[in-house]
Amino acid sequence: MNWRELKEGGVTALGGMVSGGLDSCTATHWLREKGLDVYCFTVDLGQPDEDNINSIADRMIGSGATDAIVVDGQESLAQAGLKVIQAQARYEGGYWNTTGIARPVTIGAVLPEFDRRNIEVLFHGATGRGNDQVRFQIASNMLAPDLKIYAPWRDPEFVSEFPGRQQMLDYCGSNGVPIKPSGESRYSTDANFLGLTHEAGDLENVEIAPFFVEPGMGVWSWDAQDQPETATIRWESGIPVALNDTDLNTVELFKEANRVAGRHGVGIGTHVIENRFVGVKSRGIYEAPGMELLGTSYEYLLQLILDRRARELHDHLSKVLASQIYEGYWFDLATTSALAALEPITSLATGTITVQLHKGNILFDSATEVPHSLYTDDASMESVGSYDHEDAEGFVKVLGVSSKNFGVRQRLKLD
Amino acid sequence: MNWRELKEGGVTALGGMVSGGLDSCTATHWLREKGLDVYCFTVDLGQPDEDNINSIADRMIGSGATDAIVVDGQESLAQAGLKVIQAQARYEGGYWNTTGIARPVTIGAVLPEFDRRNIEVLFHGATGRGNDQVRFQIASNMLAPDLKIYAPWRDPEFVSEFPGRQQMLDYCGSNGVPIKPSGESRYSTDANFLGLTHEAGDLENVEIAPFFVEPGMGVWSWDAQDQPETATIRWESGIPVALNDTDLNTVELFKEANRVAGRHGVGIGTHVIENRFVGVKSRGIYEAPGMELLGTSYEYLLQLILDRRARELHDHLSKVLASQIYEGYWFDLATTSALAALEPITSLATGTITVQLHKGNILFDSATEVPHSLYTDDASMESVGSYDHEDAEGFVKVLGVSSKNFGVRQRLKLD
Amino acid sequence: MNWRELKEGGVTALGGMVSGGLDSCTATHWLREKGLDVYCFTVDLGQPDEDNINSIADRMIGSGATDAIVVDGQESLAQAGLKVIQAQARYEGGYWNTTGIARPVTIGAVLPEFDRRNIEVLFHGATGRGNDQVRFQIASNMLAPDLKIYAPWRDPEFVSEFPGRQQMLDYCGSNGVPIKPSGESRYSTDANFLGLTHEAGDLENVEIAPFFVEPGMGVWSWDAQDQPETATIRWESGIPVALNDTDLNTVELFKEANRVAGRHGVGIGTHVIENRFVGVKSRGIYEAPGMELLGTSYEYLLQLILDRRARELHDHLSKVLASQIYEGYWFDLATTSALAALEPITSLATGTITVQLHKGNILFDSATEVPHSLYTDDASMESVGSYDHEDAEGFVKVLGVSSKNFGVRQRLKLD
Amino acid sequence: MNWRELKEGGVTALGGMVSGGLDSCTATHWLREKGLDVYCFTVDLGQPDEDNINSIADRMIGSGATDAIVVDGQESLAQAGLKVIQAQARYEGGYWNTTGIARPVTIGAVLPEFDRRNIEVLFHGATGRGNDQVRFQIASNMLAPDLKIYAPWRDPEFVSEFPGRQQMLDYCGSNGVPIKPSGESRYSTDANFLGLTHEAGDLENVEIAPFFVEPGMGVWSWDAQDQPETATIRWESGIPVALNDTDLNTVELFKEANRVAGRHGVGIGTHVIENRFVGVKSRGIYEAPGMELLGTSYEYLLQLILDRRARELHDHLSKVLASQIYEGYWFDLATTSALAALEPITSLATGTITVQLHKGNILFDSATEVPHSLYTDDASMESVGSYDHEDAEGFVKVLGVSSKNFGVRQRLKLD
Repeated sequence: MNWRELKEGGVTALGGMVSGGLDSCTATHWLREKGLDVYCFTVDLGQPDEDNINSIADRMIGSGATDAIVVDGQESLAQAGLKVIQAQARYEGGYWNTTGIARPVTIGAVLPEFDRRNIEVLFHGATGRGNDQVRFQIASNMLAPDLKIYAPWRDPEFVSEFPGRQQMLDYCGSNGVPIKPSGESRYSTDANFLGLTHEAGDLENVEIAPFFVEPGMGVWSWDAQDQPETATIRWESGIPVALNDTDLNTVELFKEANRVAGRHGVGIGTHVIENRFVGVKSRGIYEAPGMELLGTSYEYLLQLILDRRARELHDHLSKVLASQIYEGYWFDLATTSALAALEPITSLATGTITVQLHKGNILFDSATEVPHSLYTDDASMESVGSYDHEDAEGFVKVLGVSSKNFGVRQRLKLD
Repeated sequence: MNWRELKEGGVTALGGMVSGGLDSCTATHWLREKGLDVYCFTVDLGQPDEDNINSIADRMIGSGATDAIVVDGQESLAQAGLKVIQAQARYEGGYWNTTGIARPVTIGAVLPEFDRRNIEVLFHGATGRGNDQVRFQIASNMLAPDLKIYAPWRDPEFVSEFPGRQQMLDYCGSNGVPIKPSGESRYSTDANFLGLTHEAGDLENVEIAPFFVEPGMGVWSWDAQDQPETATIRWESGIPVALNDTDLNTVELFKEANRVAGRHGVGIGTHVIENRFVGVKSRGIYEAPGMELLGTSYEYLLQLILDRRARELHDHLSKVLASQIYEGYWFDLATTSALAALEPITSLATGTITVQLHKGNILFDSATEVPHSLYTDDASMESVGSYDHEDAEGFVKVLGVSSKNFGVRQRLKLD
Repeated sequence: MNWRELKEGGVTALGGMVSGGLDSCTATHWLREKGLDVYCFTVDLGQPDEDNINSIADRMIGSGATDAIVVDGQESLAQAGLKVIQAQARYEGGYWNTTGIARPVTIGAVLPEFDRRNIEVLFHGATGRGNDQVRFQIASNMLAPDLKIYAPWRDPEFVSEFPGRQQMLDYCGSNGVPIKPSGESRYSTDANFLGLTHEAGDLENVEIAPFFVEPGMGVWSWDAQDQPETATIRWESGIPVALNDTDLNTVELFKEANRVAGRHGVGIGTHVIENRFVGVKSRGIYEAPGMELLGTSYEYLLQLILDRRARELHDHLSKVLASQIYEGYWFDLATTSALAALEPITSLATGTITVQLHKGNILFDSATEVPHSLYTDDASMESVGSYDHEDAEGFVKVLGVSSKNFGVRQRLKLD
Repeated sequence: MNWRELKEGGVTALGGMVSGGLDSCTATHWLREKGLDVYCFTVDLGQPDEDNINSIADRMIGSGATDAIVVDGQESLAQAGLKVIQAQARYEGGYWNTTGIARPVTIGAVLPEFDRRNIEVLFHGATGRGNDQVRFQIASNMLAPDLKIYAPWRDPEFVSEFPGRQQMLDYCGSNGVPIKPSGESRYSTDANFLGLTHEAGDLENVEIAPFFVEPGMGVWSWDAQDQPETATIRWESGIPVALNDTDLNTVELFKEANRVAGRHGVGIGTHVIENRFVGVKSRGIYEAPGMELLGTSYEYLLQLILDRRARELHDHLSKVLASQIYEGYWFDLATTSALAALEPITSLATGTITVQLHKGNILFDSATEVPHSLYTDDASMESVGSYDHEDAEGFVKVLGVSSKNFGVRQRLKLD
């Protein structure tokens, strides 16, 4: 899809999802020049690197936007982030995919605004090699099948006019576009209050150490305080309701968890080489201190509650949901189904978990008030509990029947 | 099976697998008193808590053993540990199951000795609530289907005579059994050079913090040095051949990895509540610094080499093998099959991985000389590589067809 | 647990789950002789081989039962059977496990009766090598943790008194126990209206053809009529509401489906060698004509509705639930969770499926009125639908990037 | 990629994979007209619908091909088909994907021919909506990363010149292209000796019964003989070496199996609505009588040999391989790895399986000479085997501990 096809198709206005960065400003002005009205929408996801999200709207107006609106997405993001934790949906290499979960939240936030304004084309600034274009496409197609999608970075004309960053800077300079002053970073960052994803630039070279990344939500472990600190999370039916005895709503609890874990270097600097949806590998450095603190403490709670069969199913759901989120299928039937499977489990997930934070580590400290815990003294070596040691004789002998049979019929043949 | 049945069945001698601890000495002497010859075998697995493994033999002779032999199992354990790393076979909660993998190694080491001496009954000191009795039973039944198994802790007579530790101490004292002097520990430990498993005693209470555990292979993170240190592992076809530029055989490499990682508090103190084979939950604190260092660096190598489909299969094999090891099915067809699946992957796993060790953390530093790496500049945001950004337009539109269809036919129905 | 322990423990009465066969009568009389009151319960599951289920009660009274009650379980069984179909939970080799699903239904039916009568011990006639003892134990322990369980076939005294069928016949004869006259069958059968399981006896020999089995719910294919017949099932939100345009409730629909499919030899005579819970292999011949008809037509409906990701998740849930049912974990958290995952899917499963029945075959005929079908003309080779053939060029080229990379970096190394 | 880009890139010759049908002849002549040399390759896969495969070469020369070569692919296809059977890699809905496995075989057969002639561009006639374009692309890219791929059905100029079948007929008529005379079929068929895939045309309508399909490898069940027939397959280490006591090589055995099973209507007419790689659903009717006969008999053999854990792993490998084949990833690392996992299993798969064939049904008759069978009399209800019924008491009580615990701690909360 290029801009000429849009115009020929009778399109006069686009709805943009913009971050307010150099790309957004350039593309907005460029489309305006082509004679297209651009309505710019910025979703407030509590971006840690954005001190005044409303200033983005001013910048977009200055870039030629017909209108610029900030839409709140924080509560929605918190609920989605909580599902990720309940699912323990860590992606390849074990990181919290805070960018992947934010994309459908963003789409979900802007679509009602488009509807209200009869906007028929969505424009986004995701590139043609990344996962985000896929996530935007799928979420938008599922929720609003008639909405068209335009991506400047897949429009040959735009790409050829702006082969690199310098050409955008020049263009903005000569057109009076009020871009945010910033030095050139060694990498780029996607941010929301669940976490940061750093990639590209110097991070693409895996032969040099990535410690030049400047944490945006805390510190590297060597810069953290020497003193360990405990953190106590109160879970009720799968929902974290209090941190260190302070009752907080989910948005505030995530933010406080970021502060507490971030200052200890927890959940910061996770390196992953992952397989993108489009097949190529990419490298990211992830920060998600609050997710790590809450997610790890929830895992400790699950360990007390889940029997072996439920654990296996939960592990599978974790994998399914991590993959669905990574690929952009948040509004999909498989996602709905997997989330429904979590409900009987979260309803049992009540308890208080205390962990110790120290220099990048989260260590289990203690668990109390877990009414549905299956951990009892049956496993004790001491003579308590309902477990009769002699029954074990029958148990292992029953297991032994098939093992012996294997030994006789198949074992020798394998050597 | 109780000792009377053994004697009535014509058994005159047992082959014991003994650690040289209080239980071993007590049971050996007690069986001797019943008129049974006991041949004691101790497998040398480089137990970090045993400074002189040969002294065990003296102790067993002093306890009434007819003979006492130390059998080498170090090379065999190293090879098994390496398979665990190649498989990334971490168990529930992500720990390295160094006890589970050692059990079949021990069985594999003693059986030829039994064969040579025509021993028809194996005796082991595992309790009736644990996993180890299952692992010994299965491994033994598979390799030697005719060998009988006797476990004093499932013999009602033995259990009633020794309801607790004090009764064993009294018995040994009054019978002159030369037990190893030791204060009563707050927990018990299983040890080999791959790692330590601490459990039971005060560790059974999850309401108190477990930091009273004294690491046996390193230090807690707060006792580690402030200065980070890099460690470089050279992998050739899935085998770690050098650590920090020193070529080492696998046994020595594990031990050096333990020293290097242990002094930084890496791989120490992992708390897990797990589901035992017999269904009950138990709690363990695990130490495996070398496994953690080698295993994590191998994971980084895999991230460069495995495409998405191979990664998914590998993840599944990890789960299968972790479970097979946990349950004692090391000599099983499913294990043999899963290990065969790893071979085409390990054959590609060549490269040099450098990590940074600091206060309990392992951080990726860099990767070099990885000839089969699939990480290329195709994912770059810059205009390089063989990836044509415009093709992405077709790609996402093809994906979009089914997403739109879902939106039209199913989406509205789900709300 | 033997009967003496029961009496010593103060037990005076047992609640039996009885089928009214030779074993039930023998054990009931034998226990009565030992001075224990036996209340006999028979659950009405529409057993196809039982023409007058109430006559069982008379027989049990004649065998010495203190009371004998028939409890209705048909509606409950129909609902459970429907879940099995919705889950497509076929077990190893693809058969419908109609015995496994009936066990928890039976337990669920008798427990309220026990409660009402303060019965503290359950007695069942399952043998010590089968799956059913496990299923009864688990279901009962989960729903009524305090209820004790007594199984005569694990009581050494009972087993030694009745080593075979003849001893039971003799015992009943000399004690005037009114057993049901029956010739000795070449195999034994478990029956309910969902299906029959034939096993044991001559069926244990896999070297002889099993065609001596006499179908109890239909005919072998060679005895079926030559004329094909169509059958049309109307599904609404996962529930079969009509068969051949006749509205039926679920119980009646299962029974009518049995008649229709049974007369065409459908779902009859499926041979399977399966792995029992206790590890040994056993051989069964299964009949379930109605399940096969309904289950296959539901599968055809699912093929129209499930996208690839939902299909994969559904396949996994099928496997999980088949295994949970086989092992007796119907009231388990993993089962509850997996069933919850099915709900968003069944809510879409509306449509009319027609199949053709002929000599053991079910062939897809047609599908109509499937509002959530994802099958559209986008796949057509003709120029219709929303799929642009040229986009495919971009799609396959994007896929090609990683394939080429694999070819360059890894392919040659594998040869 | 369009033909102009090819020429501008200096390409003068293409290597075509052709079936000799209308599309092949049209595209070959059209490309020749554009000034490109076309070398045509037809791979002999024992296509059942092709009585003289060499006549294709004449037709291609008549269509303007510079040269036309028939390459043998039968042995290679048989080996690949055998792997599919060993893997039990049935695809969605349970059919044998005989088209999917043939694509990489075709690519593997022509590439050495291309190499020998320095052909730099592959041309194939797969359409832009199907799976085959993906399979050709991936297989070719993996084995020959430098080979370019040209597909007329994705070249806008070709597509616009030939919007339908009639335009191709007209073009061939006016250019003297010697197309094979054939009436218009109601559907199209892909054929090789493993099976046939019928799709498109009238088969796209699922509201009408598909019994108008004329089986190409046998008969519909109603046209099959009344008399049942037994078939006996001798397996040695996973390889079928004899059918009905006649030793045959793998190619001949597949063909004889087709004849035997085909005449009984076995493996014919399987309807499936599947999810294509590109996301859309398509409908196929599959025939594969020999695969069904061999595959089912191998499954019976596996049931005797595989313990529960090996069965679970095998089931997973079946799924992985079916998916890899469907998506065209036959030369992939995951495929290589999964096939390696099968080897320890196939090495045990020796035995003789007899089945009965009748009117579309395959029924298990008997199994003999299976040295690694785990089926023993341990499961017998009679007093034989090494299984002690009393041990079961301990076994179920051990299982009961966790079930009771669940009942106490979690069960009530779920209601």
